[in-house]
Amino acid sequence: MGNSGFSHQSLPFLSVQKLLKEQNIDGLLVRSTDRYFNEYVPVHLSARAYVTGFDGSVGDAIITQTGAHLFVDGRYTLQAKKQAQGFEIHVSDNGQSIENSWLKELGHLLSANKSLAYDPQTLDLNLFEKLNDQITRLNARLDPKGEDLINQFFPPKKDDVAAKTTQIDNKLAGATTAQKLNALKAQLAKDGINAFLAVKLDDIAWLTNLRSYYFPFQASIPGLAIVFADKVYFGLKPGINIDEASLPQEVVLVKEQELIPYVADKMGQSLGVLGIDAGETSKAQEIALHQHKIALKRVANPISAMKAIKNEQELRHLRSAFKKADQVVYQTQNFVVENFEKGRAITETDVDRYVRENFKKSGSTELSFRPICASGKNGAIIHYGTPDNQQTIQENSLFLLDTGAYYDGGYATDLTRTFFAAKKSGEAALWQKQMFTLVLKSSIAGLSARIRKGSVGMQLDAIVRAPLWQHNLDFAHGTGHGIGINVHEFPPRIGPTSSTPLKEGQVFSIEPGLYFENLGGVRIENLATLVEDKENPNFLRVLPLTFSPIDNRLVDYAMLDDFEQQFLDYCDEEFKSDRPWPNLPPNPPKPSFI
Amino acid sequence: MGNSGFSHQSLPFLSVQKLLKEQNIDGLLVRSTDRYFNEYVPVHLSARAYVTGFDGSVGDAIITQTGAHLFVDGRYTLQAKKQAQGFEIHVSDNGQSIENSWLKELGHLLSANKSLAYDPQTLDLNLFEKLNDQITRLNARLDPKGEDLINQFFPPKKDDVAAKTTQIDNKLAGATTAQKLNALKAQLAKDGINAFLAVKLDDIAWLTNLRSYYFPFQASIPGLAIVFADKVYFGLKPGINIDEASLPQEVVLVKEQELIPYVADKMGQSLGVLGIDAGETSKAQEIALHQHKIALKRVANPISAMKAIKNEQELRHLRSAFKKADQVVYQTQNFVVENFEKGRAITETDVDRYVRENFKKSGSTELSFRPICASGKNGAIIHYGTPDNQQTIQENSLFLLDTGAYYDGGYATDLTRTFFAAKKSGEAALWQKQMFTLVLKSSIAGLSARIRKGSVGMQLDAIVRAPLWQHNLDFAHGTGHGIGINVHEFPPRIGPTSSTPLKEGQVFSIEPGLYFENLGGVRIENLATLVEDKENPNFLRVLPLTFSPIDNRLVDYAMLDDFEQQFLDYCDEEFKSDRPWPNLPPNPPKPSFI
Repeated sequence: MGNSGFSHQSLPFLSVQKLLKEQNIDGLLVRSTDRYFNEYVPVHLSARAYVTGFDGSVGDAIITQTGAHLFVDGRYTLQAKKQAQGFEIHVSDNGQSIENSWLKELGHLLSANKSLAYDPQTLDLNLFEKLNDQITRLNARLDPKGEDLINQFFPPKKDDVAAKTTQIDNKLAGATTAQKLNALKAQLAKDGINAFLAVKLDDIAWLTNLRSYYFPFQASIPGLAIVFADKVYFGLKPGINIDEASLPQEVVLVKEQELIPYVADKMGQSLGVLGIDAGETSKAQEIALHQHKIALKRVANPISAMKAIKNEQELRHLRSAFKKADQVVYQTQNFVVENFEKGRAITETDVDRYVRENFKKSGSTELSFRPICASGKNGAIIHYGTPDNQQTIQENSLFLLDTGAYYDGGYATDLTRTFFAAKKSGEAALWQKQMFTLVLKSSIAGLSARIRKGSVGMQLDAIVRAPLWQHNLDFAHGTGHGIGINVHEFPPRIGPTSSTPLKEGQVFSIEPGLYFENLGGVRIENLATLVEDKENPNFLRVLPLTFSPIDNRLVDYAMLDDFEQQFLDYCDEEFKSDRPWPNLPPNPPKPSFI
Repeated sequence: MGNSGFSHQSLPFLSVQKLLKEQNIDGLLVRSTDRYFNEYVPVHLSARAYVTGFDGSVGDAIITQTGAHLFVDGRYTLQAKKQAQGFEIHVSDNGQSIENSWLKELGHLLSANKSLAYDPQTLDLNLFEKLNDQITRLNARLDPKGEDLINQFFPPKKDDVAAKTTQIDNKLAGATTAQKLNALKAQLAKDGINAFLAVKLDDIAWLTNLRSYYFPFQASIPGLAIVFADKVYFGLKPGINIDEASLPQEVVLVKEQELIPYVADKMGQSLGVLGIDAGETSKAQEIALHQHKIALKRVANPISAMKAIKNEQELRHLRSAFKKADQVVYQTQNFVVENFEKGRAITETDVDRYVRENFKKSGSTELSFRPICASGKNGAIIHYGTPDNQQTIQENSLFLLDTGAYYDGGYATDLTRTFFAAKKSGEAALWQKQMFTLVLKSSIAGLSARIRKGSVGMQLDAIVRAPLWQHNLDFAHGTGHGIGINVHEFPPRIGPTSSTPLKEGQVFSIEPGLYFENLGGVRIENLATLVEDKENPNFLRVLPLTFSPIDNRLVDYAMLDDFEQQFLDYCDEEFKSDRPWPNLPPNPPKPSFI
């Protein structure tokens, strides 16, 4: 670790190092995810947050007898450095995942011939196999007792959340469980499997049309399911009650820990082959399935691809939820400006409180993630976690607001606006306008794009980044993610290495940004879908679904061309419109010969 | 085939069908490539050209007892329809290879339980295995006697080409065989192999620094090589003589057919493991290697990636060759205009002759491909093969000229200009200007691009296509190919599915186009390299290497922005300059805050 002068005796990782020495284990992997592979694990349930002090959503730690290492992506560079005291911070750059980053570093972290402890519940099979290969190469060995070790310094918390579970209206879901299973049937047959192990909680929520807010920022219900063409065996996390009368008749409830034995017993020889997705199934689950002699076949998750393509009702419901969120964000932008008008000093925390209240007023049931309320230089911390209640927002600074919520349908919204924290008449500095307008150009490039059918995420990604790349500028996060029951749903994924196909009916974000530690950050995030181009069915075009106004005071109009200006006019018009579904964006000036 | 009314009894494929019936074989695959996997097989040596009548460079045929099918890509749609009489033409669209296209169709072409004959010399292992899988799925079987069958209707030609073989000056090659082997050594060790089977002729030419013009449009020498870290065993095609005194001392000459037994005998047990690239090694070669009990390991070709990155001397030599070709193309453009000025009617053939003569005058040793001289609607035939000596070029039409040649270093050039066939004072129609200017915008997007290090072909491809995609326009060929000893060298590949990394020092084309059957075609092709961005080492920027003037009369200046205009000025200046190495292109207007 090299921090020889370091002496915070109270930091939790020091006691983990002691534990490792006592047990003669070289290192311990503490991942940020849980056994549900949740992206957002509540901080009070997160061993990784406890042991590192870093409370960002994503980041894995490896603690060795003599070192402490935290692996994060570009979003969290600054936050990790601030929070994870005593840790060496490893930032994986653009193309590389956090996991690949620690896999690559393992050789430097472990002494040879020693062991790395891991928790089989938090490693999917693909990752486990990569880890195993790497450990073998290093002549080290893997020790599955990570869970025990973690429990010693971070005992499992008592679970007393009383989550209400509801079934969403079919008018919003657009398809019943029976209809979804019916659509799935052909894919199961094609994959040569009789059932599929559904690990992703949003998959189970989608299939059952059930929602709860058991976990913060998530509309799904913790558990595990085995999905047949005519039945869903849903193993619920203990302590969660569902009114069985409201269940779709295809759904059979079981206790989570009993699901695998129950299905194995019940189905006996006739279970046939169970499909598992090696990128989602944990090593622990595979071990349990093997113990119950269930025949496995590795397949690509057949549910996520179906779930990603929203049906008509879902699209209309999403648009109506996005409209509400557009208003909340716009009001918050105005709230900040009005406070400057009235000469009232406010803090990031005041904005955070205002946003939360306003989402409630707008009818939202829960936030879809912790709001990012970042003023001035804090905007450069890409996923700025905790608003500052001490420092007042400086007049004439940039303010980055990234928020989202759930409404009655249990689908998430997500929107980022960067605005000028100043009086109405405030004049932004040239650098603020230029930085904002560059990001705006990148955003318009994406929101007005046409792509050839069959294109994948990295192609749209290149179109969005090109206006920034021209000036050798870039942002260290993806361009976009799918959204639905979770705020981050995949597919699709729009990033420099995303090979997932983009398809009509997918709903995703386009969120370019620019971040400078010494200046602050600008991000503009919108949600959009893809529709077939009526003039040429070989093409898809992006249809924006969010129109919360951008702050005109931050636009350097001289940097925009006529088409970009027209595009902004279109957004203004859509924001003001009552239409339940937006019009198509304008076309760039078309040569007459076509 | 469905052509029930068809009755050209003299067409060669009819006698192939007869042969198939006699031998009770359902179908025969006739590929366009030869045992060297050459892209350009001379028409007089091409069984596929003979049997189909189609003389384009790439296209595979499958003839069955009752059908005749030709598979081509978008470049050859029109030409194939014109030439391959009696054949059903299958055009593989953008993302799909010709091979995948016939693999997919096999089920429709073959009767069940019948056999497909193939020539093991013209199928690489990857393709063979895909074919084998597909045949198994169809309950059909593969028959390796394709070569025999082909020999029956297209007997092997007598080979009496007297090719002169020369060693190129080390000042041009920039590295000796010894130096190249030395650089290769580490990669062989890393791959865990003792030697590599070099199948690609351009790889062998690069490694040995030898060139010949045995095949038209190619500077390499036919044969096969086994490359050790200190020695190259080069199995020469019979009939080719090399002055052994001029050979690098690391190169040992053997007869082609004796190479595998020679190396196996000579090396005995100590051969160790021979690396083969399954995408380049033929089924026939694998069989021969197995017969001689040589231990094989599949690896990625370690030579091509090294060869793709040009060294300083190669880059300077390439640039000097490109400069000569720039002049030849410019003179040809002027030649056409001058003939209109003088009121002289000329044909495509006249232009073809002029180009060929002018390349010779400029010092070229050979053409690097058959020139494409396409006037008017012929320009829509993407690889228009044979110039028309009958019809005069219409005044005020578009003329598409795509040509290249070899100079003393044995490296290819390649350049396309579309110009206005008219008097100097001729005024192009609006549609001609608009079509040309759209392609020009796409070209400038590529030639002025910056890309993040680590980017791959499809990312640059998206940047080039975006200005066309905006109007739902596209071109049915790749955006770019590497160039070197062959005019088409891979890596790199710039296309909608290219995942090959783009690297500093690679040299490649950027060649967007637009093609309308009823109007004609525009293509603008330039060559370029990548250099590190001095302002930000995380980026590479494109550096153009060809500057032959575009035809100003075809530019709709109202469609260009200031930066695009500046870029054109830069190209003009570079064309006029004496500098051996071009300056960097201009930057788009840079916001002052950066």
